[in-house]
Amino acid sequence: MANPVLPSSGVLSPLGLDAVRLSPGFWGDRAALNREVTIAHCQEWEEREGWIGNFRGERPRRGREFSDSEIYKLLEAMAWADHPDLPALAETVAQAQEGDGYINTRWSGSRYTDFEWGHELYCYGHLIQAGVARLRMHGEDRLTQVAIRAADHVCRRFMDGTQTCGHPVIEMALVELYRATGTLRYLEMARRFVERRGLPALADIPFGRAYYQDDMPVRQAQVFRGHAVRALYLASGVVDVAVETGDEKLLKAVESQWERTIARRTHLTGGMGSRHTDESFGEDYELPPDRAYNETCASIASIMLAHRLLLATGDVRYADVAERTLYNMLATGVALDGRSFFYANPLHVRVPAVPLDGVNHAPEGGLRSPWFDVSCCPNNIARTLASLPAYVASATADGIQIHHHTPSEIRHGGLALRVETGYPWTGSVTVRVVEGGEGRIGLRVPAWATDATLAHVPVSSPEAPLPEGPVIRPASPGYAYVDGPWRAGDEIRLELPMAPRWTFPDRRIDALRGSAAVERGPLVYCAESVADEPPLGDLTARMSPPVEHDVDEAVELEVEASLGTPDGGGWPYTPSNGRAGGADVRLRLVPYHRWGNRGPATMRVWLPL
Amino acid sequence: MANPVLPSSGVLSPLGLDAVRLSPGFWGDRAALNREVTIAHCQEWEEREGWIGNFRGERPRRGREFSDSEIYKLLEAMAWADHPDLPALAETVAQAQEGDGYINTRWSGSRYTDFEWGHELYCYGHLIQAGVARLRMHGEDRLTQVAIRAADHVCRRFMDGTQTCGHPVIEMALVELYRATGTLRYLEMARRFVERRGLPALADIPFGRAYYQDDMPVRQAQVFRGHAVRALYLASGVVDVAVETGDEKLLKAVESQWERTIARRTHLTGGMGSRHTDESFGEDYELPPDRAYNETCASIASIMLAHRLLLATGDVRYADVAERTLYNMLATGVALDGRSFFYANPLHVRVPAVPLDGVNHAPEGGLRSPWFDVSCCPNNIARTLASLPAYVASATADGIQIHHHTPSEIRHGGLALRVETGYPWTGSVTVRVVEGGEGRIGLRVPAWATDATLAHVPVSSPEAPLPEGPVIRPASPGYAYVDGPWRAGDEIRLELPMAPRWTFPDRRIDALRGSAAVERGPLVYCAESVADEPPLGDLTARMSPPVEHDVDEAVELEVEASLGTPDGGGWPYTPSNGRAGGADVRLRLVPYHRWGNRGPATMRVWLPL
Repeated sequence: MANPVLPSSGVLSPLGLDAVRLSPGFWGDRAALNREVTIAHCQEWEEREGWIGNFRGERPRRGREFSDSEIYKLLEAMAWADHPDLPALAETVAQAQEGDGYINTRWSGSRYTDFEWGHELYCYGHLIQAGVARLRMHGEDRLTQVAIRAADHVCRRFMDGTQTCGHPVIEMALVELYRATGTLRYLEMARRFVERRGLPALADIPFGRAYYQDDMPVRQAQVFRGHAVRALYLASGVVDVAVETGDEKLLKAVESQWERTIARRTHLTGGMGSRHTDESFGEDYELPPDRAYNETCASIASIMLAHRLLLATGDVRYADVAERTLYNMLATGVALDGRSFFYANPLHVRVPAVPLDGVNHAPEGGLRSPWFDVSCCPNNIARTLASLPAYVASATADGIQIHHHTPSEIRHGGLALRVETGYPWTGSVTVRVVEGGEGRIGLRVPAWATDATLAHVPVSSPEAPLPEGPVIRPASPGYAYVDGPWRAGDEIRLELPMAPRWTFPDRRIDALRGSAAVERGPLVYCAESVADEPPLGDLTARMSPPVEHDVDEAVELEVEASLGTPDGGGWPYTPSNGRAGGADVRLRLVPYHRWGNRGPATMRVWLPL
Repeated sequence: MANPVLPSSGVLSPLGLDAVRLSPGFWGDRAALNREVTIAHCQEWEEREGWIGNFRGERPRRGREFSDSEIYKLLEAMAWADHPDLPALAETVAQAQEGDGYINTRWSGSRYTDFEWGHELYCYGHLIQAGVARLRMHGEDRLTQVAIRAADHVCRRFMDGTQTCGHPVIEMALVELYRATGTLRYLEMARRFVERRGLPALADIPFGRAYYQDDMPVRQAQVFRGHAVRALYLASGVVDVAVETGDEKLLKAVESQWERTIARRTHLTGGMGSRHTDESFGEDYELPPDRAYNETCASIASIMLAHRLLLATGDVRYADVAERTLYNMLATGVALDGRSFFYANPLHVRVPAVPLDGVNHAPEGGLRSPWFDVSCCPNNIARTLASLPAYVASATADGIQIHHHTPSEIRHGGLALRVETGYPWTGSVTVRVVEGGEGRIGLRVPAWATDATLAHVPVSSPEAPLPEGPVIRPASPGYAYVDGPWRAGDEIRLELPMAPRWTFPDRRIDALRGSAAVERGPLVYCAESVADEPPLGDLTARMSPPVEHDVDEAVELEVEASLGTPDGGGWPYTPSNGRAGGADVRLRLVPYHRWGNRGPATMRVWLPL
């Protein structure tokens, strides 16, 4: 079962890389580009920046205190991608492990002297995740041994006591290692790390203890808060612990924290974490489009969490949020050439960014960069795209559920299915039975798809000719099911309504008052202005029905708008609420995930009305 | 001439503390509180935190690398206030000065090894400003000697070369020392520091070189950018250099930078510096009310700059912005008891802050704090309130101009005037001639006062009885003048219209779309909700004429609004733009500078419509 998350119980069982293969299409192409380009790109930069050299003992040590974790994330990506460079890189890492299992190129001489900022347990977490990936894809080898020795060291050192790490991730890593090996102490160690948090376990810092979720026990929290990646990694680990220990109350706590976060602290793109200062969630309804931080890694963490909650509960809302985040955050985070990345993902950019060939020190999100001082996002994207098939479908005792509609082949319980679709550009999804068998097939109908239809088209044969064409029935948001048995050639045809739609913000989101956005299918759209195109500073959109255009294998939209001519102006607060007229324009909207691929640009998701 | 700024040329000559005295009233009361409470409060905290002890050589050294500057700002406040503790504190400082004039408790053993962050020249700047204050208020003494020796050291060390400081302030300090002593090399040193900037003079940093205005020469810049306090201190020094060297082009450069900054990068309160991350101006029109940083020190720097530009040009716009910033930022920065301070000054607070008795590490602006890790603001407030009389009035060859209407006594050129007014609560300003003489008297009519009137009421006497009462004439925004000669008892009566008014933001300020604010006279108002009062999260105001109420020697306002009941809600972006109705309420508005004095509160300047 080649899967990053493999709970021993829950409503749904995930199907792994051994059961799902992506075919050419939106995600299949991205996964291929990741395997062929992005993984090598990351490896080259980590070598160039000296972060791999740190494991060889090269001096002076280079990179931030947590740079080891980048190599581990890359190793995880390589494990899922079955990449030929993995053994050599794993061997380099292994050389740095000490006799008792300790491994860290920064703190080797001064172990565990800074739990707040040291990231030692965080680094182990990513090492263990890489080890689990390797174990499941390949079986035991050097990398899995290093990971297990590190995990054993952690259990010996931390099973008793009150300590934990300033940056969560080891919690979910240890649970997964328990799932992969059956060794119960890993689960117990994870459980203790979860329960220690907020007692408190860490020192107070200028950002406040909420920054690393140490302000209160996880069971008492009502919403995700503090540093977004930390909060979402922790929540993922908490779900894992809750599922494996059967702790319903703990699971419910995370569910209700998620619910409030979705309602009040999430951007339209699925992005989370509004603030630049401490990369944190802001307060409820603090969702500025321009200064939205929306770290790419936080969106990956949000996908990881939603996936866990989906498996645990079977609730379609988690899959809906995962889809929104996949198409509008993960797909945005990496350029169409696979070699540059967004760290921050604002929804409004006023001033075109200055192109940058090298390392980006201040990732504001105006242009994708090849690398960052803190380069978590590229490696996180790489490991996520490499394991993406595992998010597509799940199984229950009575059948298969397809959560994400993308060209793919799915095998489970004797059934083999081929999913064919031009989604997200078209709304037609055909599930073709390649090898017949028993079972109920469920297809997710996204929340926005209020007029979807489903047809079950049995294979036509001389013995059982199709009577008068398929029976088409409405399919409400949620899961639409068709029962078997199935014969090779049977088809299910889902039609999702793809008309572009205007979307309005809750009136409590102050920063978006008086504006609206356009969505189509799972995609958020934005206006983008590059080079000599008119700037978007004084834009007023009219709520005309968006017109569709096929451009470069994507769908672009056009709405009516007026654009004012920028002028200097004086004191900008006056007794007049008058609106200056601008010139009428046809405003082109591109999928948000494609913005910033044509050079420095200004951009707006939310259009003033 | 007891004045912090004394240009040798310019359209207006400032009147100093020897010419203007504040009487009881809005600013007189604040200045008295500052003298009696705030200065001692600062001194106590600087002793308690060990920042004064650093000068005694106490070890370990405590405080940030620039903590010396806090003691210098306090010394400046003491100098203007003629405070009895000054000599002893100056003596403590003097002990730390080295033989060649170098003085810095942090870098003594490793001089000038970090121009980017070391703040050594910045500290000298504040020391020199304190020395100039002392020289002008008292004459030469220990403090002035220390300052002059430091300035001489700076000139010896830095006259040649390319270096400058990561934090400007020494530029204006050196020009003022030149003005106070006539020693030309101080001016030349200041000029060189100004011209070196942006060549560049400093290293690149993750915030980018614009953070310390080293991204381009000051003459080429089009707007203030980067760290707001740095930008505004630098601009003040540039004006000083331009005025003393007769460099019209340089002056024009700052004027046009100021103009664009006022039109595009200034909050309604006069606050500047939108971003928390690097305490910087954001882009044009990036003016979020909730995350507005608006550091108190930046507003003080803005007042310093506007004052310099007013003196150089005589343009009333500078006095208008200074007034706005004085009443809505400086007055807001310190509590009504003089013992706690705002560092950040947002225009919208969603969640009441948690009270804090000690040092505030993360000054978000929700509640005033007694002290901060970086405690620039309290000392900056203290020195500004102590020198406030110097901002009230100016003179020209033909008379006196009154820029800020507050109870005061003004003497110049044989004329003695008494200003009587309840401003900013009432709009009646009476200037009574106490000692007669020649000259034209000018009174500023603020830009918002479009229906002001002015009356000249000669003293009534048996020889020249008043005919039928005073002649009242309209007074347009700008300066309203009345010519002399004057006899004791003559009066000028200015009537400013004080009806509350609704104010709308430029439509390019995205964060304020669909909302309006209420102003009255020079004051910005806000809704505030403490304790059990209904929260302001789901507020819709109606543009009813605000009703006035006299409360606690202030004027509060009331408008009609509706308040929704908060609910959890689901995904907050929907196809519906519908507005849920709320309960009708009378919404109380308080002057922004008084908010946060009743305990933890939520607050809104901009009211959704």
